[in-house]
Amino acid sequence: MTLQERLADIVGAAHVLTAPEDTKPYFTDWRKQYSAAAECVVRPTTTAEVARVVALCAREKVAVVPQGGNTGLVGGSVPTGARREIVLALARMNRIRALDALNDTLTAEAGCVLAAVQSAASAAGRLFPLSLAAEGSCQIGGNLSTNAGGVNVLRYGNAREQVLGLEVVLPDGRVWDGLRGLRKDNTGYDLKQLFVGAEGTLGVITAAVLRLYPKPAASATAWIALGAAREAVELLAELRGRLGERISAFELVSRSCLEAVLSHVPGTRDPLGAPHPWYVLAQFDDTEDLQTRVEQALARREAVIAQSGEQARALWRLRESIPEAQFANVKHDISLPVSKIPEFIAHADRALKAGFAAAEIYCFGHVGDGNLHYNVGPESLLEQRAAVSRVVYDAVARLRGSISAEHGLGQLKRAEVRAHKNPLELELMRALKATLDPQGLMNPGKVL
Amino acid sequence: MTLQERLADIVGAAHVLTAPEDTKPYFTDWRKQYSAAAECVVRPTTTAEVARVVALCAREKVAVVPQGGNTGLVGGSVPTGARREIVLALARMNRIRALDALNDTLTAEAGCVLAAVQSAASAAGRLFPLSLAAEGSCQIGGNLSTNAGGVNVLRYGNAREQVLGLEVVLPDGRVWDGLRGLRKDNTGYDLKQLFVGAEGTLGVITAAVLRLYPKPAASATAWIALGAAREAVELLAELRGRLGERISAFELVSRSCLEAVLSHVPGTRDPLGAPHPWYVLAQFDDTEDLQTRVEQALARREAVIAQSGEQARALWRLRESIPEAQFANVKHDISLPVSKIPEFIAHADRALKAGFAAAEIYCFGHVGDGNLHYNVGPESLLEQRAAVSRVVYDAVARLRGSISAEHGLGQLKRAEVRAHKNPLELELMRALKATLDPQGLMNPGKVL
Repeated sequence: MTLQERLADIVGAAHVLTAPEDTKPYFTDWRKQYSAAAECVVRPTTTAEVARVVALCAREKVAVVPQGGNTGLVGGSVPTGARREIVLALARMNRIRALDALNDTLTAEAGCVLAAVQSAASAAGRLFPLSLAAEGSCQIGGNLSTNAGGVNVLRYGNAREQVLGLEVVLPDGRVWDGLRGLRKDNTGYDLKQLFVGAEGTLGVITAAVLRLYPKPAASATAWIALGAAREAVELLAELRGRLGERISAFELVSRSCLEAVLSHVPGTRDPLGAPHPWYVLAQFDDTEDLQTRVEQALARREAVIAQSGEQARALWRLRESIPEAQFANVKHDISLPVSKIPEFIAHADRALKAGFAAAEIYCFGHVGDGNLHYNVGPESLLEQRAAVSRVVYDAVARLRGSISAEHGLGQLKRAEVRAHKNPLELELMRALKATLDPQGLMNPGKVL
Repeated sequence: MTLQERLADIVGAAHVLTAPEDTKPYFTDWRKQYSAAAECVVRPTTTAEVARVVALCAREKVAVVPQGGNTGLVGGSVPTGARREIVLALARMNRIRALDALNDTLTAEAGCVLAAVQSAASAAGRLFPLSLAAEGSCQIGGNLSTNAGGVNVLRYGNAREQVLGLEVVLPDGRVWDGLRGLRKDNTGYDLKQLFVGAEGTLGVITAAVLRLYPKPAASATAWIALGAAREAVELLAELRGRLGERISAFELVSRSCLEAVLSHVPGTRDPLGAPHPWYVLAQFDDTEDLQTRVEQALARREAVIAQSGEQARALWRLRESIPEAQFANVKHDISLPVSKIPEFIAHADRALKAGFAAAEIYCFGHVGDGNLHYNVGPESLLEQRAAVSRVVYDAVARLRGSISAEHGLGQLKRAEVRAHKNPLELELMRALKATLDPQGLMNPGKVL
């Protein structure tokens, strides 16, 4: 029997895809930067099927590329073409297995779309706070495997912080059932932490117990003008002192980003009359009305505080339109200590303009998490991508930042990270990989 | 040269203790259940000294027992006497290396007393939320190595959630500098998670970058009577809906615990007139006054809401006096899904009374985290400790709980955990231990 036939025995022939028109969406990443063919795409429905597929691949020494919604930005969920591989698509494992409102937990299979998890929580009067642009198509298994970030990290933490328990198919096909719904468990090493953020290189996450929160009943949204990036950091500290954890999002937007949106996205308008070099879009949530409190806190600022849900959505649309409005440029997803953001921006802007006279900088991001999307145009600079990124990453390294805040390494930054990470840390990562996946079959060519 | 002489070369002769009167406090645990002699006690002052000591021990195949404040409850920080060991006491590494208020981070060495970390944060107008009974003498390195819990986990998470970066001396004496102050960093496996909660069996934590929070400006404290444990879980859900993250602590107290306190702790009194089977002590904190809001939320309850700081302290004293008021009994530190607490209590109470007619149950704990200290007297039952614990742990296992919520495994639960944990999970733990500490020299005889 061929590999495909044996896989069909496990998941059914209809769920082993080999025709090019069927496999195409699985073999190319979202940004269409990585494309390679695997032997086939396998679409299991149960953990037992995943386990049998992975065990078969382990025996046959075929590599396994786990794939969720395939919305990643670093080529982590598509084949590399360097060896025999299958794509293991988790989309059919999309059941919410349990929701325990009194424990504030929800147990979801890997293939659940993030928006479906949010909806299930909301229907039970709870909040699942992970929220990001791809939420309508990304899957929770991928969110956890990449330790996704998004707009609510400031208040609720990354995807990692939302996980209480995991179910994982190990590289040899055995199933580790760590689906515990406990907030405290000190009975040994916290194994789930290994698989979260490992980008599928240590095993396949098949289900997770996720943490839920009280659902805020009231919101306020403000668009605040700033004279300098430094003011964003200071304003955040001031507002945290006044409003505590009510600040759910605190997004920095440069004038260049806003102008790109105003030029390219129909129906948008500048919320303020005169232009300002920087803006912050802040979202506040509470179990009770907080509009007056936010208005008082921002009374002396040049700011628009949304007076309706519609106005709030219009402000958010400005922020959410930035990625599509910028077109092609050299993109970076970096993080820094929050306090170092002003220094980073000043230094990187200067160094880029010195090295590339035409450089146009589009800087936005989750300033409360120290996470900037620092993109450099115009499009012509794509030809000098490596040199541009070198300047940016050197500025990041100087301030002990990270060259991948929330997007992961995948294929895109796999080589780059070697220049930035402490060799001892890379050695430890390789040792863990060799221990858990001695045959090197789990998502090879990614991360390490 | 002897081992002691070579250690003295590294840290100075004054900091290698061998005289019994000097070493005694280091060789016995806090509850005086474990006592064994090591070769000596070594007290380094710098990470470089720790590294040299650990490297020397690795060459000589001498085991290393890292020790912080030695306040642990499971014998994790004292020698076992089973082989050549040294105690590595971190107390002299007690500098706060940095505090970055705009990044909301503090960098502390392992030997900093927890209360000193809290004070340093407070002096900068910030909160370091980890808080537990031993905070005046436990050290942050021990808190992180044991993933300490305490009273504020409900709102802020365990010790693990407070760590952004670590510095660790590995079992071969090399130093991993992972002292990053980043809230988002997806550049590979999250190595720090391995060392947090490993009880010193994978390396020695020498410093950490800790997360700070806005300092609450106002508090409210309530002592609430309940007819059944179930009501505590329901009340928590109700209050989370009304007050969101303002609930910092939510502590369950049985009537038996309160009576033990009232009988044995001078100057205490029952806050309510008539007796009730259960109580909750709840603490609420915010950046602004919330007394009225808490009074409204509890208006229909039999409850005392503190009207002064003095009254709040008196209520907390009742809760904090429970451990000392119970005397000798069979103690358990367990966790469950919050929703399963009523079922656990009903089932375990019944099973214990069926098996041990004289059983007296003292149940209290952090109900918001699903963490109960479920202790069984009278003292005479200590002779049947294993049989009593078997009943409790079977009830825990039935509901997928944990036999060690916040105290860890150490020596006390090292054998017990093998009966409870999935063999695959133990195998993975052993594989990680063998990878990071192939000679098995880091805190042997603990955890695994």
